[in-house]
Amino acid sequence: MSKDIVLALDVMGGDKGPPMVIRGANIARVRHPNLKFRFYGDKNLINKLLRRYKRLKPISSVYHTDEHVEDDLKPSQALRQRKKSGMNLAISAVRGGDADGIVSAGNTGALMAFAKLSLRTLPGINRPAMVSVFPTERGECVMLDLGANIDCDAQTLVQFAMMGEVFARNVLGVKKPTVGLLNIGSEELKGNETIRQAASMLRDADLPIEFRGFVEGNDIPAGTVDVVVTDGFVGNVALKTAEGVAKLYLEYMRSAFRRGLFSRMGFLLARPALRALRDRIDPRAYNGGTFLGLNGVAVKSHGGTDHKGFANALSVAVDMIEQDVNPKIISELRRLHLDEETNMNKVVV
Amino acid sequence: MSKDIVLALDVMGGDKGPPMVIRGANIARVRHPNLKFRFYGDKNLINKLLRRYKRLKPISSVYHTDEHVEDDLKPSQALRQRKKSGMNLAISAVRGGDADGIVSAGNTGALMAFAKLSLRTLPGINRPAMVSVFPTERGECVMLDLGANIDCDAQTLVQFAMMGEVFARNVLGVKKPTVGLLNIGSEELKGNETIRQAASMLRDADLPIEFRGFVEGNDIPAGTVDVVVTDGFVGNVALKTAEGVAKLYLEYMRSAFRRGLFSRMGFLLARPALRALRDRIDPRAYNGGTFLGLNGVAVKSHGGTDHKGFANALSVAVDMIEQDVNPKIISELRRLHLDEETNMNKVVV
Repeated sequence: MSKDIVLALDVMGGDKGPPMVIRGANIARVRHPNLKFRFYGDKNLINKLLRRYKRLKPISSVYHTDEHVEDDLKPSQALRQRKKSGMNLAISAVRGGDADGIVSAGNTGALMAFAKLSLRTLPGINRPAMVSVFPTERGECVMLDLGANIDCDAQTLVQFAMMGEVFARNVLGVKKPTVGLLNIGSEELKGNETIRQAASMLRDADLPIEFRGFVEGNDIPAGTVDVVVTDGFVGNVALKTAEGVAKLYLEYMRSAFRRGLFSRMGFLLARPALRALRDRIDPRAYNGGTFLGLNGVAVKSHGGTDHKGFANALSVAVDMIEQDVNPKIISELRRLHLDEETNMNKVVV
Repeated sequence: MSKDIVLALDVMGGDKGPPMVIRGANIARVRHPNLKFRFYGDKNLINKLLRRYKRLKPISSVYHTDEHVEDDLKPSQALRQRKKSGMNLAISAVRGGDADGIVSAGNTGALMAFAKLSLRTLPGINRPAMVSVFPTERGECVMLDLGANIDCDAQTLVQFAMMGEVFARNVLGVKKPTVGLLNIGSEELKGNETIRQAASMLRDADLPIEFRGFVEGNDIPAGTVDVVVTDGFVGNVALKTAEGVAKLYLEYMRSAFRRGLFSRMGFLLARPALRALRDRIDPRAYNGGTFLGLNGVAVKSHGGTDHKGFANALSVAVDMIEQDVNPKIISELRRLHLDEETNMNKVVV
């Protein structure tokens, strides 16, 4: 039987709040029978909700706090004024070894700030990145960073590439993940200095990575590579543009099927297929942005998600923990540094 | 009757080449009876094609050249080695006053470089931007820059905002276009210094612009604002991501309708509605990226488009010319500078 996994949950975060978190935990419990939970938030509310889930209660412990990180609070304010929030207490449980990972649907910036301060980055990693998984024509791909870092130097992008590769290999199960650097099409304008430098580092450093050079925006949904590397500004815009276009097309499709009797009949006939289509592009299936590069597992759920989406975020945390993603990142980095030293020696000798 | 408009066309550009260009011109001729064409390229090929279009021939003149800008040529090489290409000769016709605008489906970087060198930027404009129109939940929006400039300072972004506003008002016919600066969501990380500076300039400068502050990637397809302003790197990634996601969803839809007999029947019944849907998201309808800020009208058609798409790019050029977009940008800028001086005087006195 697999080892117990303890997740610390920020119960008060997310638009749909505590009922969504507790119900999501109950779904995850069925999927992962080795799960245990530590719930952080209003204990009366949590205990009342837990009464509904008879099998969840025995594997849960509840930690009360009155403090909560509001969605509009600046991370700097949160760091100063919300130290006893459920979010930070849950993170502290990971740091203290009482939990294997923390999941929150709350304020992204605050979660990032608390997690960075409390868990610190892995040895050899400059900055943590936010990573998530996208549906593509060929299956799925991983993209990072999605908004944790606006400006990234070349070395940071190279570290993102390595972390993304380890994530794709261990969480997505891709045997030999291919990696691309997000860039723009026009020849002369092939990226700025940072991107060109990162590309040459990835090309020349003899890393254990299948680096495929530059990719463009359309390569993300096309699935040209398994890992798309970019800075947090561009990654965040690409992510949100993709989500917005998906929403637009579903809206277009809905209105197409409302046109006239035949369309409605056609819709009824094709409904099972259309349901399958909707499930396939269900954003809840891709919920759970992980902070990669931290000395601990921290997963951010979409604030607007429901219990199903939150359960998927919990599964992302479980995968990260069970697949030993963090230890693997550390050993990859160590290997890289050893290789670098070996190469140096070659050059020196 | 409206004044004649002369378009200079780079016949050899685009994946589908001369037959696509000439056929597109023939479609545009019907739409805009005041159009005349100057075709630049292989004269034997062009004359042979023109024989098919009896009504196009009399309004066309043909200018022969053997030189052609290949798609993989660097702009710097094109500038040095392809001065007599159809692309550059067509641009020269605009500079010399023999044509009112130039349209090419060829090498984007080279087109930009030749156009910038030959036509120069409008007075008061630092850099030309590439602009295009997108379908949104509420209709259409304009986005710029789409790849002409990787790094933009705050002043350049403010100029883009003004040019985009004039474009939306005159080409899209929006009475009082709203303008947003593309940014990312997380509070602490609300953009870099440049974007924050551009926002404060747009807010404080008392411009004749409905500035709505920051927007995010999902606001583009949502139609939150009429004009989305960003640098060419982010704009290009957002544009191509949106195109890729659209393609992915059409593919998903196709495969959904192939599942089983009922789905196929449903598809047949709903086909007219689905055709309308396809037309609505037809990328050919949104073909034609305009270079804004040049001293002349230059439109870039998608390289992979067909005759219908190319005809739409020609219509974009016609709109730019008939709506006097460039003179209007100049007068807006003049007004802005006068305002600035007036404000300065106020401050000084």
